[in-house]
Amino acid sequence: MSIIGAVDIGGTKISVAMVSPEGELLAKAEGPTAPERGFDDGMARIRAMLEETAAQAGGSFAGLGIGCTGRHDVLNGSLGDVGAFLPGWDGAPIARLLSEAFGVTAVLENDCDAAALGEVAWGAGRGAQKFIYITVSTGIGGGLVFDGQLYRGVGGAHPEIGHHVIDPGGEKCFCGAHGCWESFASGPAMARWWQARYPEPWDAGQICRAAAAGDERAKEAVEREARYLGIGLANLITLYAPDCIALGGGVMRSLDLFLPTIRSVIQQQAGLVPHHKVRLVPARYGTEAVLMGAAKAWMLRYGQKGIA
Amino acid sequence: MSIIGAVDIGGTKISVAMVSPEGELLAKAEGPTAPERGFDDGMARIRAMLEETAAQAGGSFAGLGIGCTGRHDVLNGSLGDVGAFLPGWDGAPIARLLSEAFGVTAVLENDCDAAALGEVAWGAGRGAQKFIYITVSTGIGGGLVFDGQLYRGVGGAHPEIGHHVIDPGGEKCFCGAHGCWESFASGPAMARWWQARYPEPWDAGQICRAAAAGDERAKEAVEREARYLGIGLANLITLYAPDCIALGGGVMRSLDLFLPTIRSVIQQQAGLVPHHKVRLVPARYGTEAVLMGAAKAWMLRYGQKGIA
Repeated sequence: MSIIGAVDIGGTKISVAMVSPEGELLAKAEGPTAPERGFDDGMARIRAMLEETAAQAGGSFAGLGIGCTGRHDVLNGSLGDVGAFLPGWDGAPIARLLSEAFGVTAVLENDCDAAALGEVAWGAGRGAQKFIYITVSTGIGGGLVFDGQLYRGVGGAHPEIGHHVIDPGGEKCFCGAHGCWESFASGPAMARWWQARYPEPWDAGQICRAAAAGDERAKEAVEREARYLGIGLANLITLYAPDCIALGGGVMRSLDLFLPTIRSVIQQQAGLVPHHKVRLVPARYGTEAVLMGAAKAWMLRYGQKGIA
Repeated sequence: MSIIGAVDIGGTKISVAMVSPEGELLAKAEGPTAPERGFDDGMARIRAMLEETAAQAGGSFAGLGIGCTGRHDVLNGSLGDVGAFLPGWDGAPIARLLSEAFGVTAVLENDCDAAALGEVAWGAGRGAQKFIYITVSTGIGGGLVFDGQLYRGVGGAHPEIGHHVIDPGGEKCFCGAHGCWESFASGPAMARWWQARYPEPWDAGQICRAAAAGDERAKEAVEREARYLGIGLANLITLYAPDCIALGGGVMRSLDLFLPTIRSVIQQQAGLVPHHKVRLVPARYGTEAVLMGAAKAWMLRYGQKGIA
């Protein structure tokens, strides 16, 4: 059996895993991103975790997939403008460096794109032809997999689903737009709305737990969140007519609370496309989503010729 | 040379043409849709126009492409729910009927999808890999051509680009949504805004001509229209990261008036995707757009094996 190595580089932690071609997680390690320790130190830790997990999984790996937050040059495997959370890593040819270190081919993907590939290969999106993965946590991100392949825009660009505008009268987002979907419906947006009204400094998870326990104020916050989630999801259905949307990320752990309103908004707003044919499902993978999908990304690009 | 027949069925007129495989319009005929005369009468007129134009173009045709407003079952060539403007035509297996009448293969596409295929084959979108065609007239429609193929959603569904919501506080549209793009930025939306303020019963074309002649009130209407066109176009750039968007339809004949504001909205709103790589161009074809694209649709589906 040929094992695939996987790396997930996030703002707070770096995870590494070994994944089988059938989608089993064979070994995993993680540590803090600790960007203040610099790029070389980070790469040394990634290499050490790869060696450690490979040893646990029985030896070597045939290829390497890397998922990282941000917008990258995925065609040549170089990081994009990631300086805001990984100062000093901007533009690093990370796929080439790890490829040379281990003597295997390596691919880099945006983390949401990787997660989308993992869900469609082995998770909630299995069998879908027009698949959308959405993660709602500190932001809203997504990935599109059409007929088994990642959708890439001009020059390989990653579409920014979370930043389409749903109300230009809304707050300004870091993306430059006023009233993008993320600015209304991310976890922090839910918390901001709450904290502008009530004394408890609750985050989205605490609000959802209070709503589930019957708190009327929290139920109103959940209703508002569900409505904005619904508006964005209905737009995606209108614009892509997908057969499946999988919902991941911390906020979506409370999907059951949001689902009735989400469905009602979709029914009202996406009436010209066959919205009743769209499966709306929770994502299968939690913190392993990017690792699984990074492995799958490698398989899609090099799996035929790359597996020894 | 093998000629392709093309039919464009709209709410007010039916056009028929003969198109060469290189995209030359060889002959054309048109007449009123006259839906009150019924389906059989309409089909008889279409057949007669096909015979007439085929004779003008030198004889017979090798295949047939049909474009029609609405949402159809394009996989089997049957019209969808078109009763609102073509009573009695709902569900008609129009591709099969014309195929049998002329002994050639026939395909049916949504009219915007057909126009998109024509523009990418021989028009403004030539060479584009991720191409979007938009028409702004009585409504806003569009078609997506990715890597040379029409994008189709679940069950072959046509995405309804014009009906994604850009402000849920907006007017209710026939589609069921409040504040979809079409409700803000179609020609009639521009006229409604004008007529709610000023005594002249002008339509979008008249407002644009007045603005071009220096009328300050009309310039404000144009500015508002351009802003809403920009918000929707910026969303499409954020969501698809295309390399080219071609703009057709009556309102877009005044594209030059709108373009500076459209570009400024895109720059502000679509900052996370490489919007400077997106070519924003006027469509090449006017009233022939659907005919050209219907012919291309047939070539894509049957061109290899179907041309005698």
